[in-house]
Amino acid sequence: MPVPSPNLYPDFNTVRLSHVEFTVKNLAASRAFWVDTLGLQISGEEPGALYLRAMEERGHHCVVLRQGDKPTANVLGFKVWDEADLDRAEAWFKAKGRPTSWIDRPYQGRTLLTSDLFGVPLEFYARMDRLPPIHQKYALYKGVKPLRIDHFNTFTPDVDASVAFWNDMGFRVTEYTEDEDSGRLWAAWMHRKGGVHDMAFTNGLGPRLHHTAFWVPTPLNIIDLLDLMATTGYVANIERGPGRHGISNAFFLYILDPDGHRIEIYCSDYQTVDPDLEPIKWDLKDPQRQTLWGAPAPRSWFEHGSLFAGLEPREAVLKAQPIIAP
Amino acid sequence: MPVPSPNLYPDFNTVRLSHVEFTVKNLAASRAFWVDTLGLQISGEEPGALYLRAMEERGHHCVVLRQGDKPTANVLGFKVWDEADLDRAEAWFKAKGRPTSWIDRPYQGRTLLTSDLFGVPLEFYARMDRLPPIHQKYALYKGVKPLRIDHFNTFTPDVDASVAFWNDMGFRVTEYTEDEDSGRLWAAWMHRKGGVHDMAFTNGLGPRLHHTAFWVPTPLNIIDLLDLMATTGYVANIERGPGRHGISNAFFLYILDPDGHRIEIYCSDYQTVDPDLEPIKWDLKDPQRQTLWGAPAPRSWFEHGSLFAGLEPREAVLKAQPIIAP
Amino acid sequence: MPVPSPNLYPDFNTVRLSHVEFTVKNLAASRAFWVDTLGLQISGEEPGALYLRAMEERGHHCVVLRQGDKPTANVLGFKVWDEADLDRAEAWFKAKGRPTSWIDRPYQGRTLLTSDLFGVPLEFYARMDRLPPIHQKYALYKGVKPLRIDHFNTFTPDVDASVAFWNDMGFRVTEYTEDEDSGRLWAAWMHRKGGVHDMAFTNGLGPRLHHTAFWVPTPLNIIDLLDLMATTGYVANIERGPGRHGISNAFFLYILDPDGHRIEIYCSDYQTVDPDLEPIKWDLKDPQRQTLWGAPAPRSWFEHGSLFAGLEPREAVLKAQPIIAP
Amino acid sequence: MPVPSPNLYPDFNTVRLSHVEFTVKNLAASRAFWVDTLGLQISGEEPGALYLRAMEERGHHCVVLRQGDKPTANVLGFKVWDEADLDRAEAWFKAKGRPTSWIDRPYQGRTLLTSDLFGVPLEFYARMDRLPPIHQKYALYKGVKPLRIDHFNTFTPDVDASVAFWNDMGFRVTEYTEDEDSGRLWAAWMHRKGGVHDMAFTNGLGPRLHHTAFWVPTPLNIIDLLDLMATTGYVANIERGPGRHGISNAFFLYILDPDGHRIEIYCSDYQTVDPDLEPIKWDLKDPQRQTLWGAPAPRSWFEHGSLFAGLEPREAVLKAQPIIAP
Repeated sequence: MPVPSPNLYPDFNTVRLSHVEFTVKNLAASRAFWVDTLGLQISGEEPGALYLRAMEERGHHCVVLRQGDKPTANVLGFKVWDEADLDRAEAWFKAKGRPTSWIDRPYQGRTLLTSDLFGVPLEFYARMDRLPPIHQKYALYKGVKPLRIDHFNTFTPDVDASVAFWNDMGFRVTEYTEDEDSGRLWAAWMHRKGGVHDMAFTNGLGPRLHHTAFWVPTPLNIIDLLDLMATTGYVANIERGPGRHGISNAFFLYILDPDGHRIEIYCSDYQTVDPDLEPIKWDLKDPQRQTLWGAPAPRSWFEHGSLFAGLEPREAVLKAQPIIAP
Repeated sequence: MPVPSPNLYPDFNTVRLSHVEFTVKNLAASRAFWVDTLGLQISGEEPGALYLRAMEERGHHCVVLRQGDKPTANVLGFKVWDEADLDRAEAWFKAKGRPTSWIDRPYQGRTLLTSDLFGVPLEFYARMDRLPPIHQKYALYKGVKPLRIDHFNTFTPDVDASVAFWNDMGFRVTEYTEDEDSGRLWAAWMHRKGGVHDMAFTNGLGPRLHHTAFWVPTPLNIIDLLDLMATTGYVANIERGPGRHGISNAFFLYILDPDGHRIEIYCSDYQTVDPDLEPIKWDLKDPQRQTLWGAPAPRSWFEHGSLFAGLEPREAVLKAQPIIAP
Repeated sequence: MPVPSPNLYPDFNTVRLSHVEFTVKNLAASRAFWVDTLGLQISGEEPGALYLRAMEERGHHCVVLRQGDKPTANVLGFKVWDEADLDRAEAWFKAKGRPTSWIDRPYQGRTLLTSDLFGVPLEFYARMDRLPPIHQKYALYKGVKPLRIDHFNTFTPDVDASVAFWNDMGFRVTEYTEDEDSGRLWAAWMHRKGGVHDMAFTNGLGPRLHHTAFWVPTPLNIIDLLDLMATTGYVANIERGPGRHGISNAFFLYILDPDGHRIEIYCSDYQTVDPDLEPIKWDLKDPQRQTLWGAPAPRSWFEHGSLFAGLEPREAVLKAQPIIAP
Repeated sequence: MPVPSPNLYPDFNTVRLSHVEFTVKNLAASRAFWVDTLGLQISGEEPGALYLRAMEERGHHCVVLRQGDKPTANVLGFKVWDEADLDRAEAWFKAKGRPTSWIDRPYQGRTLLTSDLFGVPLEFYARMDRLPPIHQKYALYKGVKPLRIDHFNTFTPDVDASVAFWNDMGFRVTEYTEDEDSGRLWAAWMHRKGGVHDMAFTNGLGPRLHHTAFWVPTPLNIIDLLDLMATTGYVANIERGPGRHGISNAFFLYILDPDGHRIEIYCSDYQTVDPDLEPIKWDLKDPQRQTLWGAPAPRSWFEHGSLFAGLEPREAVLKAQPIIAP
């Protein structure tokens, strides 16, 4: 089995994924999509930037949209347990030979900027401004009624290497796809917060951001979003779904924002807090791992991703082919 | 507009579609599918045949499965208001030059066997054995929790001709697809009972039965069926969906029984009892008419259908092509 | 059995219930409730009056709200098949000794004003202005996403007499509650359009309007409305539910508008188009007829109703007591 | 504020609640309820005892039913991170003056038996037999489709004292009800696993077990269970709901098993993994804390609970009265 043993006592305690910053070309168009259609709430606004949060979040932001020339994913944000964890994180990344710096981010406390083994830009903080709860302000619920950011999924040129690195950070593999021919990992799902994943890796030209996922209460919210997008000019932004993943067992929909940043709407995965939770293995040749109900994903879903700002992706080490819709 | 004016005062009063009889090659396999997986209830059983009803139906059967060598659709059944309507129906079909005969059907009263202009075998009755209600016997609900048979959809070689014939019978068009180039009908949906359709016609090699639909309460029942079929050996029987039709606005799933008889699981269309309800027109070039959310149907969905017993299908008059998944 | 045989060949053809007019004391408050909270669409507006329709309706209005001093239900509207049915309706009501007159109603064609045996004000029309479909304009869906008006429920001083009168009009009983001691009807549900009811009667000080019901797609829409009302100042307007009725098998919620006009939000009853559909009998002593899950209704639900304009209610003939929440 | 500061660095790491053992008087009746109606899966069976698990659990059991003379709750089980945590737990409980012993439990590794400050019997383990996943074996899903045990709720004679004790163990308060008159806690919800609670305390004659909760995917599963129980002889076992709690924001139903052990069916609370999550305060006089939609709970809900085996409950220190249905 190619999955490393979980590191149950990591050097620093990452609580969960927290936020992502995107560069978008037209902030007004992005606002129409993210706020008026998806239903995220504006928690901060400054010239050229919008800060958004989902309905049950109390941290200030889970998405930052920043106006710019080229659509990129700029940084993936994570929350750690306390300030001491931040210092231990700095030491850990330095020991791995990664660049580290302390940066100022609006609404965040002390923030460590660094990157993973392939250069994926990461930031860690312990404290972010807290906002009053809005999860019972039902008049604010709109669109897909997004409750919280759920996970990132990235293309990586070497899934085995990425998993080894993140496993050392304390992320635990819950499910994985193995290329039976090479015995190598094709994809892996890794968590900190007790769901199927905070972070996932898929073999491909990378690093690139495959998607950012938001959690919704039921499949009917996803159906509502499809109806809304289909009749408000966004039908071409619907890429894949709805369906149920074999992996994670979640009900899903994939859509693209106006700049092509992919978003997954996601519900009904399972609880993974047990430290002895056995990872579930899938075969790359099993189409039900993608969609339990059998329908393969479209080609774009395997090929398109957001570039990380300032990072040139590399060819994947694994050349096996996924099953693609004909 | 190619849709004829509705005949609001037809010669006989058809209440609704009622039932279909299929020949199946392996009755045990069909029972595993229709009863154990879909959740229809057995209301009658005789050597080589099963009678089924859905949960809110009080008529004896909506499906008859009959063991045989070649999978066919044998007859489409309709219920008329009273015995006098049966006699008027006989006169009407005779006047149209169609063959008519009075036949014995188990559990049915006096039954008229005839056929439509292209030979689609039809039977009409006024009274069928009534069974006690089971719609509140929730311990019986299984599978997709089918509530009632909802409609038939057939390939016909000439939609305009079929619509004219059925319109004379009092079936009213609710929605239709026009081939803008020829000005002819590509497809039409016609009702008696107050939903979008009891009977629909699509251009194609025909007559053949495209599908038989069953009504369920919510999209979540359809998701439950998908999960069940996907994990009990029926993943290859899932053909299309889930999705929302532009036409009818219904949430749908298409599946195939073990003999390839296509079944639609269907919910959430709309009420059409107003005699002045204006038909909704769709353009053949609009992919949202098929799936509001944009995904085109697979090729099989346009090509495969059940043969009617003893009826050789003819080429369609219209050669236009629908939009098919690449 | 106290239910009369259905009149399958009535003198005139009523298609369905159509609309209700209410007097409200504060039109702005009513608009906040009916439009902004429930989600009905404004289809007409004039000084002192609002016309509303639900999402799948194409007739101009299902509710008229008219500013006035005293909250009343002014008239219950019904649609008949054609103009000749209107004339036959006039003759029928005259023959029953009821007053009739032809009135002008905005957006409606020729309209017959009359009343039932106890004076319930009724209007009948064949043609109402038709509006373009909005059932696929999903950006307009709000609140409980009301799809269509579904039925009226009224207190009557003599259910047997009311049922006899409406049965003659061609309304067919689908379910009824019998007071076993007296052998008389306690309540009855009667339909024209193919659901459990267009019109229902309950024993009580009457005539008064008990409630007007709107159809929604799923129980989750009702839960959404509860969450919204509970957090926007309308918690005291929630009267009963959510629950499932034994009678009709529908999932329900009862709420009160700012003037105390009761509204039922309703889904998932069953199809009743068969002319030989056997009525289902319930015993007045069976609490599950009210709520299948056992919880009795609050006292207000049995006692409160809207007065009909200009009509003094009478004592009920039947003094039996329903089961009331302690 | 009466809530103590969270102990973010507890002496031992409790992962989550794990299981409960009940004594039941008729194991066959309990099986009909827990297995055939609720839908829990039998994972172990021995003379006089049944072991059950929910659909997404991989630990061997979440409920143990043991035949006996007197219905009691025998022990509440919790899972700790590793074996060293078990030893640290032993030391911690000894230091608190609580009795401790190491016991043998079938299917569990080394198990520490102890009790909380008021004698609530507790057991802790690090390893339990792991079973293959069944969360994608959809043919097994029945009843309410229970996914996992979610939390315990107990009556305690002194909520402040219980919260202080469990807070020291590392359980963090997410929501609480304050009696404004005395400034004392009326109730508190405390978690380890990242939901609103693993353990809750309510003022009352105690310790007694108020209820054990199971997580389900959507409110529709709860509606399905209500329909099933209402029509299979369990209508009297439905105690309260369905509704939405103000506290926790969860959709709920309360039912009683054949011995009166109360079960909550629960969905849609929120994620609480942030260590700086601010507890939400509710006023004892606010009826929306109980039911967001306004309906108060029945008296039985405040008064009835399961006795813990061998433990005599004491009077509560706080005499304030909750709001009870009239």
